Amino acid sequence: MEGSRPLLVEVQALVARPGLGPPRRTAAGVDGSRLALLLAVLGRRAGVDVENRDVYVSLGGGMSVDEPALDLAVALAIASTRLDRPLRPDTVSCGEVSLLGEVRPVRGLERRIREAARLGFRRAIVPDGVWDPGRHGRAASDAGLEVVVVPTLRAALAAALLPATGPLGQE
Amino acid sequence: MEGSRPLLVEVQALVARPGLGPPRRTAAGVDGSRLALLLAVLGRRAGVDVENRDVYVSLGGGMSVDEPALDLAVALAIASTRLDRPLRPDTVSCGEVSLLGEVRPVRGLERRIREAARLGFRRAIVPDGVWDPGRHGRAASDAGLEVVVVPTLRAALAAALLPATGPLGQE
Amino acid sequence: MEGSRPLLVEVQALVARPGLGPPRRTAAGVDGSRLALLLAVLGRRAGVDVENRDVYVSLGGGMSVDEPALDLAVALAIASTRLDRPLRPDTVSCGEVSLLGEVRPVRGLERRIREAARLGFRRAIVPDGVWDPGRHGRAASDAGLEVVVVPTLRAALAAALLPATGPLGQE
Amino acid sequence: MEGSRPLLVEVQALVARPGLGPPRRTAAGVDGSRLALLLAVLGRRAGVDVENRDVYVSLGGGMSVDEPALDLAVALAIASTRLDRPLRPDTVSCGEVSLLGEVRPVRGLERRIREAARLGFRRAIVPDGVWDPGRHGRAASDAGLEVVVVPTLRAALAAALLPATGPLGQE
Amino acid sequence: MEGSRPLLVEVQALVARPGLGPPRRTAAGVDGSRLALLLAVLGRRAGVDVENRDVYVSLGGGMSVDEPALDLAVALAIASTRLDRPLRPDTVSCGEVSLLGEVRPVRGLERRIREAARLGFRRAIVPDGVWDPGRHGRAASDAGLEVVVVPTLRAALAAALLPATGPLGQE
Amino acid sequence: MEGSRPLLVEVQALVARPGLGPPRRTAAGVDGSRLALLLAVLGRRAGVDVENRDVYVSLGGGMSVDEPALDLAVALAIASTRLDRPLRPDTVSCGEVSLLGEVRPVRGLERRIREAARLGFRRAIVPDGVWDPGRHGRAASDAGLEVVVVPTLRAALAAALLPATGPLGQE
Repeated sequence: MEGSRPLLVEVQALVARPGLGPPRRTAAGVDGSRLALLLAVLGRRAGVDVENRDVYVSLGGGMSVDEPALDLAVALAIASTRLDRPLRPDTVSCGEVSLLGEVRPVRGLERRIREAARLGFRRAIVPDGVWDPGRHGRAASDAGLEVVVVPTLRAALAAALLPATGPLGQE
Repeated sequence: MEGSRPLLVEVQALVARPGLGPPRRTAAGVDGSRLALLLAVLGRRAGVDVENRDVYVSLGGGMSVDEPALDLAVALAIASTRLDRPLRPDTVSCGEVSLLGEVRPVRGLERRIREAARLGFRRAIVPDGVWDPGRHGRAASDAGLEVVVVPTLRAALAAALLPATGPLGQE
Repeated sequence: MEGSRPLLVEVQALVARPGLGPPRRTAAGVDGSRLALLLAVLGRRAGVDVENRDVYVSLGGGMSVDEPALDLAVALAIASTRLDRPLRPDTVSCGEVSLLGEVRPVRGLERRIREAARLGFRRAIVPDGVWDPGRHGRAASDAGLEVVVVPTLRAALAAALLPATGPLGQE
Repeated sequence: MEGSRPLLVEVQALVARPGLGPPRRTAAGVDGSRLALLLAVLGRRAGVDVENRDVYVSLGGGMSVDEPALDLAVALAIASTRLDRPLRPDTVSCGEVSLLGEVRPVRGLERRIREAARLGFRRAIVPDGVWDPGRHGRAASDAGLEVVVVPTLRAALAAALLPATGPLGQE
Repeated sequence: MEGSRPLLVEVQALVARPGLGPPRRTAAGVDGSRLALLLAVLGRRAGVDVENRDVYVSLGGGMSVDEPALDLAVALAIASTRLDRPLRPDTVSCGEVSLLGEVRPVRGLERRIREAARLGFRRAIVPDGVWDPGRHGRAASDAGLEVVVVPTLRAALAAALLPATGPLGQE
Repeated sequence: MEGSRPLLVEVQALVARPGLGPPRRTAAGVDGSRLALLLAVLGRRAGVDVENRDVYVSLGGGMSVDEPALDLAVALAIASTRLDRPLRPDTVSCGEVSLLGEVRPVRGLERRIREAARLGFRRAIVPDGVWDPGRHGRAASDAGLEVVVVPTLRAALAAALLPATGPLGQE
């Protein structure tokens, strides 16, 4: 029931059964329209139904980010708490998510990955199309970082989420 | 169930059956009022009924554009996903859509088409009234670009959409 | 079911039976409060009932105008599409519409009419009270422009709309 | 069913039975909260019930005014159209209306009255408390202007409205 | 049914049984959130139930004030009209009202009281905690001003309101 | 039924059974989205159910603060009034609350604690992860301040709230 994974920015999500009235969508630090689009894509393109749930998203430290590169981390955090499947530890993610469910390249990917390695992360989930294993792979493996290239949000979910932890804990 | 075609800007659309409550209209990078007008024109002038559907529109790369020239690409992307008919590949489109269902001329059409040819597109759907086959046609054909002139949104749909792909795929 | 007539600015309107929920009023380039007032005046002062209809108004070219002089053109465009009576061709209109249903003088009327004549229009519908046939009439007739002075919105409708075209066409 | 009286600014009002849904309150050029307060005062302090009516208020010429001195003219215009009692001709009004139904003094009253006289008005309805018949009266009568001092909105209505005109005319 | 008492600023309030729909809360010159908090405190901490009433608040002269010191005067004006108990004449009030129902000190209390005395007020209701009878009392009594120190909103109501005036008058 | 504790800023909260309509959430000086997130965390992570209650939050002195460090004090004030358990006296609190229910470190913790000690507070509830008992503890104990390190909101509630005071008092 919880999801949180940093990519320089830590994304926190909370998904819960709604009370009375329409489901709540509350975002702090993330654009509300962008969140609505990501929820639609999760439901229609990746089979993670959050239509009738309360969804809360926040960025750690009171930060506010308006950049498509954050899409993937937001979507993964939401899916993790919705499916009650923890995100794999030491993993960062980065990528724009299109309305078609694709994960799209973003600017400055190499720089982002180097920064993640420097902060101690061991695994990065990144978009297809800009990652050249021949050219970039060496730098990443030098840094001890495994790079997982994903073409779609579905593939990203498979790569990022651990199996469900069974019945919910006390919380 | 998906639609996306670049005209320098890539327009993404997602149309889906609504959940409970009124249909959702969510736009990122496109003006919400403009989207409402285009949905009305699609339904009343071109027979593409999206009245009771959730409609999501976004521009690739987190871009934001407020220009009538984008109308046609937005309308085609929505119609494609609503009708489950793919847009023809390698095609760009450009034009203002009036409330009467006409496709209206826009500024800088030649420049836009040259840019599209340069990026590898092979076909452009453009408004009637400014395209002079004698004068402009040569430059376009030199660039290997087929130019389709459309007076109305209906004509644009006929020119842009491939036949339906039959029953929906897994997604 | 359509209405559109330029006065330097082209006003487009679309009036249609509403779907579920309350009627929609969507304006691009025109102030929403002003539109609400004009719809009230059309219904209460001129017998054009749009109370329970979806109403869309837009200005050509993505323009945005906040000036009372546009009132009359907006009201005529809406009435035309609501009553399915085309606007007379080659006609421009100009005037503030009061909550009493009067058409009120606006600034710069002469200049506006000269510009309309220059652009090829042949007929102008204008407010009472500032048009002096003796002084202004000559310039207008020299320009081949017929000037119709209207004291009220009702009179303007009679002067601007052609008879109904019978059953609606395919669109 | 109509009300309009200038005090340098012309106030237009339209009150009508509502359609479906909650009553509409639309103001152009006047603050919406201020209008809501005036409607409450009209109903609770002066017996003019507009609770369940559509109310539209606009200022002539597309003007926008945010000044308590306009309160009285707005209230009188609304009452006139609600009660179908015309406002007395050649009359201006000026004053703040409190939530207690009092008409309160405003700044620059003398200047406003002189301007009204200059524009040809013959009668002014003004707040109690600042008008000194001995000192001010002479200037007013010299200008041929009758000054009516009113302590409350009720008194202002009695002074400003002519008897009802019987059944409504065609409009 | 009416309440109004100046503290340099005159606060006007109108509380009335609601019409159809949810109760209205309309404030001019006072922050809407602040008004909502004060209504909650009146109901939960001081036994003045305005939950299901229309509440209108305005400041005289079209003024706008955003300062906690105004809390007490707003709360007293609302309570007066709700309970139909007039405020004691010649009385000013000043103080922040906390969500616990306490009246809290504000800045510049001495200056405010001196100004009130200068304007002819004879009685001031002020917060506990800053008023030193030994030191301040002399100046106040010199000015002929009675100072009433209140720790809570309940105490302020007891000090400020006269007994109910029996059945409502004509208004 | 009341909660209030200063951390340089005093946070006031009021939680009450709602009237008709949806529960009200009114915040003055605190961001409304942030409040919504904290209410969700209180309910889902710490067992303090405020879903169907009116919640009012305000900062003393009309202050406005937009900083994650205030999260903990807001959450504790709300929990105190909801559970009718007073906050322990002479206690300050400081920390960001994540959507997972963790209390997170904030900047400038040492400075904040020194300031609290200077103002006479005797106990501080602070996040885990930055407080080094060896290094920081001495300064705190020198100042006579007890520092309680809490990893989660649940732990903070246990440390901050006194037992329930039995049936509600008169208020």
